[in-house]
Amino acid sequence: MRASLIRSGMELLTERGYSATGIDAILKPVGVPKGSFYYYFSSKDEFVTQVIDAYSEFFASLLDRHLLNEERQPLDRIFDFVDAAAEGMARYGFRRGCLLGNLGQEMSTLPESFRFQIEAVFADWESRIALCLHAAQQRGALSSTADTASMAYLFWIGWEGAVLRAKLEQTDRPLKLFAREFLATNKIPT
Amino acid sequence: MRASLIRSGMELLTERGYSATGIDAILKPVGVPKGSFYYYFSSKDEFVTQVIDAYSEFFASLLDRHLLNEERQPLDRIFDFVDAAAEGMARYGFRRGCLLGNLGQEMSTLPESFRFQIEAVFADWESRIALCLHAAQQRGALSSTADTASMAYLFWIGWEGAVLRAKLEQTDRPLKLFAREFLATNKIPT
Repeated sequence: MRASLIRSGMELLTERGYSATGIDAILKPVGVPKGSFYYYFSSKDEFVTQVIDAYSEFFASLLDRHLLNEERQPLDRIFDFVDAAAEGMARYGFRRGCLLGNLGQEMSTLPESFRFQIEAVFADWESRIALCLHAAQQRGALSSTADTASMAYLFWIGWEGAVLRAKLEQTDRPLKLFAREFLATNKIPT
Repeated sequence: MRASLIRSGMELLTERGYSATGIDAILKPVGVPKGSFYYYFSSKDEFVTQVIDAYSEFFASLLDRHLLNEERQPLDRIFDFVDAAAEGMARYGFRRGCLLGNLGQEMSTLPESFRFQIEAVFADWESRIALCLHAAQQRGALSSTADTASMAYLFWIGWEGAVLRAKLEQTDRPLKLFAREFLATNKIPT
């Protein structure tokens, strides 16, 4: 039951963000009364904290599946992640974006505690991409002077902008174009 | 009165987005009763349509002030715009972002008519940046093979991601770092 509520929250927050998501909408697909919600969670904010944690785990495993795939070259692994994420967005008609992007956009109306939680998740994603860029650099696919830490930070900035634009245009063009251009910078032709 | 309501709406939508902005909150700083709102606007959606138009005009004039400044080199004009926008965000404690970014993020819960209106504004911003990049190219500051149209599209993708991140981190670091990296690509050292 608890897991079903978290799952429902993850879907709704990924699609609509915090402000547009009421507790009733979270309960509806799970089919439980409001009292049950407060049995598991003390407040909407405590619930959202747990939803962010669950999303962070879900997304880290998506990243690992592609970025740690030893059968692919490091830069191709990043493209694989982008393709998988683009397919995921297409599957839901480009209505669902990034839960962190939605909450970050709404930050001025959210509790301060969310800020640090979201920043920590971005830092985690950043380190995963940095590791992959570093592997590309070691194999000579990326310029030895490229600042992989800085690139990883900029990757998620561009990614969030691309996801936002993909929701608007309802195509994966922003995601694909961003990834291609991002990886073209500092890339050493093979 | 009408202009004051539009101004109040622009401030609130830039800070909180659509879902978190009720008509009462728009009326409050202006100090008019709800009936007056419906005298000027038939609905919240019609009001927001006009707020987007007003924001589009406001932002186009900010862009023009910097991008058409003949006293500066074309690429420096883009940095000037970034600096001015970063100062604007700092002035409001990084609570206010981009009205278009906020609405784009909320797109799945908004009327379809907003989609086309927002896309048209992005297309307008894109053409203004493209013109400036083209001027840089003609003066030999940007590689002659650089695809300025594609760069202009990617500029606004990265920009929206950077604004989102600046709201989260409450610093202008994402804006400055994004602009520096973006313009470093294809730039010809002087």
